[in-house]
Order: sequence, then structure tokens, then C-alpha cells
Amino acid sequence: MLAIIAPRASLPCLKIVQDRRSNAGGSVGRTRVVPGTTEDISRRFVEDIADQDDDFDRWYVDVVKRAELADDAPVRGCKIIRPYGYALWENMQAALDTRIKATGVQNAYFPMFIPESMFQREADHIEGFAPEVVRVTRAGESELEEPLVVRPTSEAIICPMYARWVQSYRDLPILINQWCSVVRWEDRPRAFLRTTEFLWQEGHTCHATPEEAEERARQMLEVYRDFIETELAIPVVPGEKSDAEKFAGAHRTYTVEAMMGGKNWALQSGTSHDLGDHFGRVFDIEFLDRDGERKFAFNTSWGLSHRTVGAIVMVHGDTNGLKLPPRVAPIQTVIVPIWRKEAERDVVEDFVGEIEARLRDNVRLFTDRRDDKTPGWKFSEWELKGVPLRIEVGPRDVQNGQVVLVRRDTREKQSVPVGQLQETINGLLVQIQNDMFQAAQQRLTDMTVKVSTLDEMYERISNNAGFSNAGWCGNAECEKRVKAESHATIRCIPFAQPDDPGKCVVCGDKAQHEVIFARAY
Amino acid sequence: MLAIIAPRASLPCLKIVQDRRSNAGGSVGRTRVVPGTTEDISRRFVEDIADQDDDFDRWYVDVVKRAELADDAPVRGCKIIRPYGYALWENMQAALDTRIKATGVQNAYFPMFIPESMFQREADHIEGFAPEVVRVTRAGESELEEPLVVRPTSEAIICPMYARWVQSYRDLPILINQWCSVVRWEDRPRAFLRTTEFLWQEGHTCHATPEEAEERARQMLEVYRDFIETELAIPVVPGEKSDAEKFAGAHRTYTVEAMMGGKNWALQSGTSHDLGDHFGRVFDIEFLDRDGERKFAFNTSWGLSHRTVGAIVMVHGDTNGLKLPPRVAPIQTVIVPIWRKEAERDVVEDFVGEIEARLRDNVRLFTDRRDDKTPGWKFSEWELKGVPLRIEVGPRDVQNGQVVLVRRDTREKQSVPVGQLQETINGLLVQIQNDMFQAAQQRLTDMTVKVSTLDEMYERISNNAGFSNAGWCGNAECEKRVKAESHATIRCIPFAQPDDPGKCVVCGDKAQHEVIFARAY
Repeated sequence: MLAIIAPRASLPCLKIVQDRRSNAGGSVGRTRVVPGTTEDISRRFVEDIADQDDDFDRWYVDVVKRAELADDAPVRGCKIIRPYGYALWENMQAALDTRIKATGVQNAYFPMFIPESMFQREADHIEGFAPEVVRVTRAGESELEEPLVVRPTSEAIICPMYARWVQSYRDLPILINQWCSVVRWEDRPRAFLRTTEFLWQEGHTCHATPEEAEERARQMLEVYRDFIETELAIPVVPGEKSDAEKFAGAHRTYTVEAMMGGKNWALQSGTSHDLGDHFGRVFDIEFLDRDGERKFAFNTSWGLSHRTVGAIVMVHGDTNGLKLPPRVAPIQTVIVPIWRKEAERDVVEDFVGEIEARLRDNVRLFTDRRDDKTPGWKFSEWELKGVPLRIEVGPRDVQNGQVVLVRRDTREKQSVPVGQLQETINGLLVQIQNDMFQAAQQRLTDMTVKVSTLDEMYERISNNAGFSNAGWCGNAECEKRVKAESHATIRCIPFAQPDDPGKCVVCGDKAQHEVIFARAY
Repeated sequence: MLAIIAPRASLPCLKIVQDRRSNAGGSVGRTRVVPGTTEDISRRFVEDIADQDDDFDRWYVDVVKRAELADDAPVRGCKIIRPYGYALWENMQAALDTRIKATGVQNAYFPMFIPESMFQREADHIEGFAPEVVRVTRAGESELEEPLVVRPTSEAIICPMYARWVQSYRDLPILINQWCSVVRWEDRPRAFLRTTEFLWQEGHTCHATPEEAEERARQMLEVYRDFIETELAIPVVPGEKSDAEKFAGAHRTYTVEAMMGGKNWALQSGTSHDLGDHFGRVFDIEFLDRDGERKFAFNTSWGLSHRTVGAIVMVHGDTNGLKLPPRVAPIQTVIVPIWRKEAERDVVEDFVGEIEARLRDNVRLFTDRRDDKTPGWKFSEWELKGVPLRIEVGPRDVQNGQVVLVRRDTREKQSVPVGQLQETINGLLVQIQNDMFQAAQQRLTDMTVKVSTLDEMYERISNNAGFSNAGWCGNAECEKRVKAESHATIRCIPFAQPDDPGKCVVCGDKAQHEVIFARAY
């Protein structure tokens, strides 16, 4: 079994990095064990975080802020991604970037500004994005002759370049991705899930045949599925979007849908679009094919954004805060040294130094040496921050040559001799990652129910009971009615279909597919 | 000696990735050795690139475009960074990011928009950036109540957050960096050097004492010096900016200045600012210090942009195109298989496969299997693209169990038995990196001359003769006069100062410092 720990260059993962024994002789209060149980402190620590069951949305906001993933920005619609949240995103980026590159895609960078006239060329595209598009109209003291759109997505700036680069079938395929931020105006932001500016990657490919474009669109959806399930421990349902839910201008849109905790709503976690030759025609991406004929090229685009950070929070979090999947956690193991007297401190510190030396190269490790916080406070804070494993080391542990190891997900404790620590931690991190996925998978299964009547479905929707599988005739009117009456939408037509999808849950006609209806973020 | 090769996950570094033997039996022309010398083809290949000596600026534009580092964008003032240029930037980012993190700094992300009123709070800052600031005034169909500035730099959005996060000395220091793009309006763009939108990192730190801020500003300049000299093989002169050349709002600005090829102009390659408590006061970053008093915090900011990609082009390039430093080159070694008949092809391919297996994990490798280009064409193209080492493999090489290895920098050829290939390549990549640095260092030394009269200096400046070291009294009027009369500016006051800087080259008064006068990009 491979260790899942990708070590990073001795990265201090937190602001509170301190030198060993800093302030040791200073006027600052020393770490001590306070009377009262850990539970007491833990309860006090999280008391200003809303209860998950009472108000899941408020819980989300509180946890994101208290765990220092993100903070409010002094700009409407925007949030600030703080170092702890960004370190998580960086680990996610690295894991996804490797997967994307493994399929032959290369990174590049296109300007964030798109001339208004260029943006206007694709009609569906404009219509889809118009209400949320942000425009630059002034530079220095001058008004611009033509406003610039700040990219809400980059098809309209990338496709004209493809038109320039592609002459013959030999220039195809073009496989490009970019990591950047995009802008879609948002009045009521929610950190990671919905902000005016957000971070993502957007891939844009260009092909000689429709089959190749279709294959690429499906391939990248599979990359997303694998990334989200393997790295984030979140099970997803891959499928196709209905016409009403397609990307503006797409031939087909594929999606991976995840079920969040709390209200059991859906989160569209990554989408991949087969654009057909629609953009090729509009932007004149024409090439001389092998057979000597001039043809329009076929495109795909696909994106995954930092809303997947929000998914991690909502799928795995509990009353005590975050639970981060070990594979992407900025800190995989936190060490909390414990002592009462100065003499103990030295003994514990030496032992901690030894543990650090053993683990440092194989685990993303942080030792919390703050001396103005009690161990109990630290336990709660690191639980809130979702660190998968905690090592507690007190004077008695030093005597016994062992440490106490505590899992964040189950809160199970065990004593481990230092000689077995590395191996135990490696095993536990894999175990935790698996267990977190299994727990989320179990929930998704339990909370997905086949329904055959509208009443049954609406009751589930209003009770936040999860996903409803239902037959659908394929008619947009039926889809529209459900949305109007319940706010639920067709999340996707799953790739995995029953032999007989039965009847349309709305009109009772023969169903074309079984689809998932659910409310979504 | 450590190998300098940081392998990347089997990254296909070019669009022209092909499967082994793709099109092998197709209708497509096969690779063959064309009559005529490599030199002939090479000359033809680069004939549409301007001569370095005739027109260095044109040469720069041509090379950047032909080597596919960047392309013109359909947006005024902007450029597109193509995969080959972006892969170079990614390697540079990775090397710099590691160094930045090693100093305890963490990455984060702040919004690209800054409310106009917030941007207006620091007077010097506004004045410095006003002419090039870009503003968003419309979102969807509505005019915004308050325009948003697209960040030209982020002090004005980051400092207000620091004011929120800092209460006590315990919250300090804050050490944050972000990788992002910033916008400064530019009518006459030059790829990498000067574009409306450009990629960079900007670090922003916040400290309890002026000494700590000053130390951090100097520390980050040293990070830049080490990064540029070690990774990019470009020697720099570290020093301080004169008041006239300081960052808008800074207490002190430090810089690393490099000398470009061709016209021997300077390029400011990275700057680090000690902001004093100027921004702390303006943005109310107040904290309760150890001594119980409330104080304003001290800040630094420091940035390095993708103009350093332009520096690589201009410092190392020659008539045949780019020369990329091995440590950051997207492809460190390119393999060009050579054959005439199909039977030879198989033999060569098998041998190439063996070589790839030997090298793949230790060198960033690419095999050029295109079958519509002759070997001569490929040699020239990879020289243009600056790949440090080329491996040529023909049927006779296979028989002899060896390959021909060619250095890009010196064009030296040698035959190497496959068994020694890995070792030879490792050694050569280190050697090339060193030799490139030494060559640039020699040039910098040769082209830096101490002058004692204005005439002498102006003659050097008008002849593009390089850097002129000269005494300066410290008076802004003298500095201004030189700029008005020669377009040269004080690039920096180097940290390394002579015992006696002599007399001011302008007014003849006692000099305070020896400074570097030069024209700059």
C-alpha cells in the first residue's frame, strides 16, 4: 500500500510559526494544562459556530471564517482566501494539474479582458452571461472606445487565437488549460461557492472531428470524477445536463454532481462541454483536412473551480468544524506538546524534536508551540481546522517512549510507541481518506431514492431529503414545472441508467431517462 | 555535485506530442535526411528573424513569436502566453515559490478589484498609478455606484485586511504572498516586458518594528538575487533606488538590476519595498505592543514579474534564437531520430525507446517524432527554442551503441556511448547553466565602466555601451538633468560601494554614493 503523503518542502503551514522555545524566558504566559475536561473547552471553542442541524448555511459561514479558510472582503461580492484555505487549494491544484497534464494538455495564459465585440459574437454565450458580466470602460483618465469584458469564461478570447493557430489538420488537436480567476457579478456571495471573482481552471481544446471532441469532453469529466473522489473523498454522480441546464453555447454539457451535508443539496462540482463546431463556425476556426477539404474545427471546454473547497467543507464537516481529506490537507498531522513545569518542557521539547525528525520528510507536519494557548484550546482549534491526525506528547509519554495519536474523523485515541509512529500514521492517513469517502458514499446512497410521483418527490425536496431519482420524458416543460413548483432542478441524466426508466414523474408519459432531481447550491 | 534536473511528471512539453509511430503507414510524408548542410537549413529557418546587431528590439519580438513563447492578443496592450512560454514561467514560479515559502511566507488570494475610495487613501500611491489604472464601472446592465479599480498592485486591498487581522503583537508578523495578474494600462506592449495585464507574485508583510520590516525587505531582495542568478543564470546588481525611482508610497525601494544583451540596457528584475509605517498609518493597522502601547505596524511589499522571462530571452539569446537555462527550460534535452528507409526507422525507434527509458525520470525530455519535418529543420527549430541539449540518433549511431550530443550554447558536438548518456547529460546541464552565468557575468563586468565626466557618460549612453558607474551627490536635480539630457536613469545605488565614491558626475560636488546610470526597458 502506497503512502498517500506527498511531502512539501518544509512549509510552515500557519501564521503562528514560532521558533523552538521562542519567548521561553519572556513575560508571556506559559502553556499549562488547565483544569476542566477537553470537552468543556471544545464546547466553549465552538460555541459561536452555529449548529449544523439548526442552520447549516450559517454553520458553513461560521466554519469557513473561524477555520480561517476565507474572510469577507471590502469589495462587494468578493471574499479573501486566507493562507490556510489557499494551501488547501494549492494541494488540490497540484493534484488536478498533474492529472490534466497526464492527458497531454498544456497550460497557457490568455488575457482577462475580452473586447466587447468579440464577446458578442456567440449569441447563446452572450445571453447566458449578460446579466453577470463586468465591464471595464475607463483606463487612466480616458474612456475606452470599446468596453472590455472581464472574462466570465474564456471561449471568446481563446477561440479567435485558435483560428489564427490552426491551418491544417496537422495543427490539431490543440489542448490547452489555464489556471486563473474569472468574474461573474454576484450580490450575495458565499465563500468558495459563489463569489464575483473566483479561482478555477478552464481547459479549451480544438479537434478535427466531432468524435474526438466528444471523447475529450468525456475524458475530462472522468478526470474530474477521479480527482474529486480520490483526492477530496467525495463521491459524485457523473452524467449529462439537460438542455435547460447546459453551458451557454454548448452542444452537450457533462457534469459531476455531489451531495452536500446538512440539507443534502447538490453541488455541481465540475463540468465539461462538447461545444460541437458551434464556436468553430462563429470564430472561424477553419482547417484544411487530410482529405483536402476545408472544415470547421470542433471544440471542448471544461472547468473546475474553488467551489470544490466549499464541497469539502459541506460534505465532511461536523459540529466541531472541518474534516480535511488527508491527501489535500495543508497539515496532515499536528503535534501538541504538553507540560506543566519548565523542566518538563525541555524533556517534552527534546522528544518532540525527535518525532519531528522522524516524520518531517513524509508527513505535512506542524507543531503548535504557542505558549499563550492551553493544550485543550489547541485540540479544539485543530479539530476546527480539520487536521486529520493529532499527536499529543506529555512528560509521561516521554517516559514511556510513546505518544497519543487522535483521529479527527472518529476522535479515536491510541498510544503509539515512537518506533511505530511513521508506519502507523501512514496507515491511518490512508484509512481516514478511505473512511471519509465511504461515509460520504454511504450517505449519498442512503439519501438517493427512486420516486414515482410528484407528491413523493416534492415532499422529499421540501424535507431536504436528498436526491430523487425519477423518470423524465425529456420534455423541457415538465422540467420547468418542477423547478417552478419546488426549486429543484434536473442535476443530471446519470451515465448509469436502469434498463427501464419507467414513466415521467411529471406527465406520466414514457420516460426517456432516469434523472436526478434535487435542489442545488 | 548535485544534478540540477528537477524532473516533472511525464509532461508532454509541446503540442506536437505524437504516439510512437503514429501515421507510420499513413499517407503522410516521412522523415528523411534532405541533401544540403544543416547550416543551410538553419540559415533559412531563421531568415525571417531580425539580426541581433541590426535591430535588437525587432529580434526580441521575432524570437518571442517564432519560438512560440507568446503571441499578440486581440486586446490592446495584452499578449498571450503560449504553452512553451508558460511552461518556462511555471518552472520559474516553482523555483521562486519554494524559496519564498522557505522564509516562512504563505500564499493567499485577495480580490482583483479595489473600491475606488480605498484605492484613493494613500496619496503617493494614487499619484504614482493614476495614469495607468483601469476601472470597472458596469456590472450586468447597471452602472456601479462606486467604480472598482482593477489592481495595479494590491497594497490598497491587503492593508485594510491586515488592519482587521492585527490586534496585538502576537498577531505579527503576517507574511503573505500571492501569485496573480495585475493591470497597468499600456498602449505599446512588448511581450513579457510591458503589457497591460501581467503575471507576477506580490508579497506583503506586516511587522511590529521598523527594523524587522527593513530586514524582511532586504531578505526578499536577496531571495530574488539568488533566484535570478541561480535559476535564470543572470547576474544582477542589488542596490537601493534613488527617491525619484522609488515605489509610490515606499520608505525605501531595493532592486536587482540586470544588463540585457544587444543594447546593453538595464532591466529592473525584481523590487522589494520597505514601506515603513506609512501604509500602517493610512490603513489603520494598529496593534497593542508587548509594552502595552498601541502602535502602527510596519509593512513591506515585494514583487517579481514575468518580465524576467523577457530577461532570459535578452540576456542569453543569440542569432539562432533562445538559449534557455537548463534549470528552468521546459525541455532540457530533445531527441531527434534520423533515418532514410522504413527498415532503419524501426531500428532507430527501438534505440530511441531505450534512451527514453534511461533518461525519462531524470531529465525533462522530448522526442521529436514529427514526420513532415526534416532532421535539419528540427535541429534549427529546437535551437530557436533554446533547448540546452540535442540528441541525434541515426542508424549508424545505433550500430555503434552511441548518440551524438549537441550543446545549444556552444554548438559543440560529441559522441556518447548510451551507457554514459545519463551521467554525461547531468554533467553537461550543470556545465551549461554555469557557463551561461559566467558568460553573462563577463559581459556585465566588461560593459560596466567607471566614468568621471558627463561627456564620457553621455557618449557611453548614446553608444549603448552598458552601465556607467558614477559618483552622485544625492541631489535630485542632478539626477533629473541626466535623465532629461540622455534618457538614462539611476538604476540603483549598489550595496557594494567603493571607499570613496569621488565627485558627483553632474555637479562636481562631493559624491554621497557611486551609482549606476543606464538606459532601461
